[in-house]
Amino acid sequence: MMLSDPAKKYRPFVAVDLPDRQWPSRRIEKAPIWASVDLRDGNQSLIDPMDHERKQRLFDLLINVGFKQIEVGFPSASQTDFDFVRALIEQDKIPDDVTIQVLTQARPHLIERTFEALKGAKNAIVHVYNATDPMFRRVVFQVNKEECIQIAMDATRQIRELMEANPETNWTFQYSPELFTTTEMDFAVEIVEAVMDTYAPSVDNRMIVNLPATVEVATPNNYADQIEWFCRNVKSRDTLIVSVHPHNDRGTGVAAAELTLMAGADRVEGTLFGNGERTGNVDIVTLAMNLYTQGVPPELDFSNITPVMREVEYCNQLPVHPRHPYVGDLVFTAFSGSHQDAIKKGMADRRAHPDAVWDVPYLPIDPLDVGRSYEAVIRVNSQSGKGGVSYLLEQEHGIELPRRLSIEFSQVVQEVADRTGKEITSQMIYQAFADEYLEQTSPFVLINHRLSSEPDSPKVTLEAVIEENGERQTLHGEGNGPLAAFIKALAAAGHDVEIIDYHEHSRGQGADAEAIAYVEVRIDGKAIFGVGTDESITSASMKGVLSAINRHHSTETPAPNVTAETLA
Amino acid sequence: MMLSDPAKKYRPFVAVDLPDRQWPSRRIEKAPIWASVDLRDGNQSLIDPMDHERKQRLFDLLINVGFKQIEVGFPSASQTDFDFVRALIEQDKIPDDVTIQVLTQARPHLIERTFEALKGAKNAIVHVYNATDPMFRRVVFQVNKEECIQIAMDATRQIRELMEANPETNWTFQYSPELFTTTEMDFAVEIVEAVMDTYAPSVDNRMIVNLPATVEVATPNNYADQIEWFCRNVKSRDTLIVSVHPHNDRGTGVAAAELTLMAGADRVEGTLFGNGERTGNVDIVTLAMNLYTQGVPPELDFSNITPVMREVEYCNQLPVHPRHPYVGDLVFTAFSGSHQDAIKKGMADRRAHPDAVWDVPYLPIDPLDVGRSYEAVIRVNSQSGKGGVSYLLEQEHGIELPRRLSIEFSQVVQEVADRTGKEITSQMIYQAFADEYLEQTSPFVLINHRLSSEPDSPKVTLEAVIEENGERQTLHGEGNGPLAAFIKALAAAGHDVEIIDYHEHSRGQGADAEAIAYVEVRIDGKAIFGVGTDESITSASMKGVLSAINRHHSTETPAPNVTAETLA
Repeated sequence: MMLSDPAKKYRPFVAVDLPDRQWPSRRIEKAPIWASVDLRDGNQSLIDPMDHERKQRLFDLLINVGFKQIEVGFPSASQTDFDFVRALIEQDKIPDDVTIQVLTQARPHLIERTFEALKGAKNAIVHVYNATDPMFRRVVFQVNKEECIQIAMDATRQIRELMEANPETNWTFQYSPELFTTTEMDFAVEIVEAVMDTYAPSVDNRMIVNLPATVEVATPNNYADQIEWFCRNVKSRDTLIVSVHPHNDRGTGVAAAELTLMAGADRVEGTLFGNGERTGNVDIVTLAMNLYTQGVPPELDFSNITPVMREVEYCNQLPVHPRHPYVGDLVFTAFSGSHQDAIKKGMADRRAHPDAVWDVPYLPIDPLDVGRSYEAVIRVNSQSGKGGVSYLLEQEHGIELPRRLSIEFSQVVQEVADRTGKEITSQMIYQAFADEYLEQTSPFVLINHRLSSEPDSPKVTLEAVIEENGERQTLHGEGNGPLAAFIKALAAAGHDVEIIDYHEHSRGQGADAEAIAYVEVRIDGKAIFGVGTDESITSASMKGVLSAINRHHSTETPAPNVTAETLA
Repeated sequence: MMLSDPAKKYRPFVAVDLPDRQWPSRRIEKAPIWASVDLRDGNQSLIDPMDHERKQRLFDLLINVGFKQIEVGFPSASQTDFDFVRALIEQDKIPDDVTIQVLTQARPHLIERTFEALKGAKNAIVHVYNATDPMFRRVVFQVNKEECIQIAMDATRQIRELMEANPETNWTFQYSPELFTTTEMDFAVEIVEAVMDTYAPSVDNRMIVNLPATVEVATPNNYADQIEWFCRNVKSRDTLIVSVHPHNDRGTGVAAAELTLMAGADRVEGTLFGNGERTGNVDIVTLAMNLYTQGVPPELDFSNITPVMREVEYCNQLPVHPRHPYVGDLVFTAFSGSHQDAIKKGMADRRAHPDAVWDVPYLPIDPLDVGRSYEAVIRVNSQSGKGGVSYLLEQEHGIELPRRLSIEFSQVVQEVADRTGKEITSQMIYQAFADEYLEQTSPFVLINHRLSSEPDSPKVTLEAVIEENGERQTLHGEGNGPLAAFIKALAAAGHDVEIIDYHEHSRGQGADAEAIAYVEVRIDGKAIFGVGTDESITSASMKGVLSAINRHHSTETPAPNVTAETLA
């Protein structure tokens, strides 16, 4: 095993000095401006970049979920992107309240080409960047700080002039000091202020300053410190829209976005489900739904999230993980017995208090709010218990097991689960239930019965035809009701059965409705359940009694199992 | 579009009051105690829980990467888990320096059964929990605070007595107030202190108090505030190992773990790549490698991360996402031209300064440190440029294009990429290069040549046999070197060619070595490159000249493309 010491090769991130930071005491009280970079940062990181059809579909999806700012490409760097931007404009695909954004490097002929791509757009953001990070200045571009600032100012001046020369478009200017988080903070402010001096933003015509974490290099509180420091130190803060662009190299992109919003950012650039360079851009879906669960309107619509995921998977040709927050196939699922039991009780409590705030165990959001059903919430495997089993029987088969029966039956299912090691579907549970309780026919089967009673008498008289090991016989009994009469009739035929408990309810509706009766009886001193179903409530209860007797006779009654009670 | 207002249904998380929090100014300077819950929390959340073979393989993997604390199951709740724990102990599968941990509810017969499962273990953590969250107290368990505390104390007393009765095992006691983050903080401290009073931990025999974010319900700074508040308010802090157990419902589990470590936690429970209930447990791989990139030894070994991922995928039967930090198939890949260019320069700078700290653009970690190669770093699609093309030709084919040639050739590749819309493999790039530069045979082919020179004379005399449109001819020339002589010979035959630039290097080694010559010439006032390869350095350079002439004659010279320079 190689436990190498990384101290020589890697250095810790140097934090900005901000002991009086304010952001940790704040919370996010409204949605930021959302800017999608799916079609640019997302697209350029795909094994096979989107073709025109996929780009158009993703653009339409972004519009449908409510994005108002969409970076549509890098038209000066790619003919494909140039053609796509032209098609959007010339084919009038952009709603009037949506602003498209394009990226360009800070080079004269690329800026020129960028404006060619945007000709005729109603609303557009021209997003220019240059590298301010010291490693990039030294190694990649070989410029000093003054030259670096000059590049940014020259590009800004050219863009301002081209904007003025093309007044038919509502222009917004965006500048990014690239790799902001690894740039010296005072230099970041210096270059942004030089750009501001050149562009001259105002409170009524704010420019966007985007401060990207192009590579995530530190715990997310550091990015928040940097944003707060920047906002406190830059001049004329009120002429700026401060934007963040978090990546996810350390798996903390969502946290970084949230903490930077608390620190004063106004706008977030990200993508649907976090596609983007390397580990991805920040996932705007998670950010939006995180706001939603805190009672903050997210200003994006994910009320039917699964089709959004499928469309994004089609366009990106990359999967969304089954544990991805809010959308993954497994994120609303509980397999564990204690979780299932708690969810079941929480859901019942919610039905009793439908206007209370959402507070259901293990479900930070109501699955219905993203278009998911409760069906998938409870799934059963060998780690499950009666909670899940009962829930599935009730939700999917209309069978409401009494509590003690649910304990007894969960042992049957547990045994199947331990034996197979697989997920148990609701159909498998139903089949196990039917096999165990409904379909045992030995020794007794109920054939038919006839009841009669005298007016004003509480007594009913029963004549029941049954088969015992295939031989038909008629039993007679009398009692305070049909079930009591049936017990008497059985006793007269030599079968002593005592009723301990009895539940019955209807199942299904209309012509298909039937009754299901759960009868707990004592036979030879031992308690055992039986279940019967029939269109007639009396037949159902009698079948339930015979089911219990048949199970008692069966050699295959389930063995008590230590696991049953643990799941209570 | 439904932009619903969630304010009625959801409430914002109520933060703990800690305006003088200290954690945001700290950083993590050593690895915490890592505790894997892959075999418990991870396993219970799988569609198909692991069978014995998969459990054993995952256990062995956890040992191999260096975990010293491993929660191996919930033996009192599942016969499968019970049997697995017994097999580990009876078959002597647990190294002496590893402690197994098992979970139990706070119920007498389950605790009893738990100790049966652990009989004979050398080192064991008994992890007991009960629900302290107010919603669980009210709805799920219907207990008041006093009853809740009593449950915890009774369980603790029973566990302590069973530990004392089984002194052959080195016991550690762990208590979790369940759903810590949604429990009233003062009540959390109260119940933990009641448990401490019952168990009597000391500085020499610390107990673990695990404070889980069973469901992630707020931005991660809140969890950190709660941990710092708890550590500052609980008595006898030095008798406790404070453990966190973050989940990932809001996509911020990694951040939550990091901020809580800054806030004073000693230990993290999580899983490999974040398997676990719903959105998963916190991913310990990401946490460990995040430490590594800050120069902090992670105390876990992921120096060959891909086989670890494959084994976990096999055991969990769930995929790891291609953008998962440090391990996903795409996370060390750059497709974009500007990124590729920067990486190439950064790598060259690193070769020049091999002892400097790691600082390569877009690569927060050296891929070699997790057993990945540089091969996958650069991949080419329609968003790429000469950086990636040159890098691949150099890395995989030993072809070091001169700068201007790399610009010219990138247009050839760009055109292929734009036309196909697909990723371009290095083989496709090489083929495009060979088609364009090496394999054009019209009008000229070099057949052979002979050089002679007089002693003490700088002049060489050349006799070259070429074919022009299939017709063989012999050219004669003299010059200061073979190339100059060849130019003269061509001129004498009516082909005016001027050399602008010339590079040549060897390619391959030993018997397979050959020379490759890049010759930039001017013909009819136009600059054009040619490339030749041969075992002989002189033949290679002459072939390069003929390649340029042939390309000039070809009608298929690549059209200048605006994208070329953008990628410079």
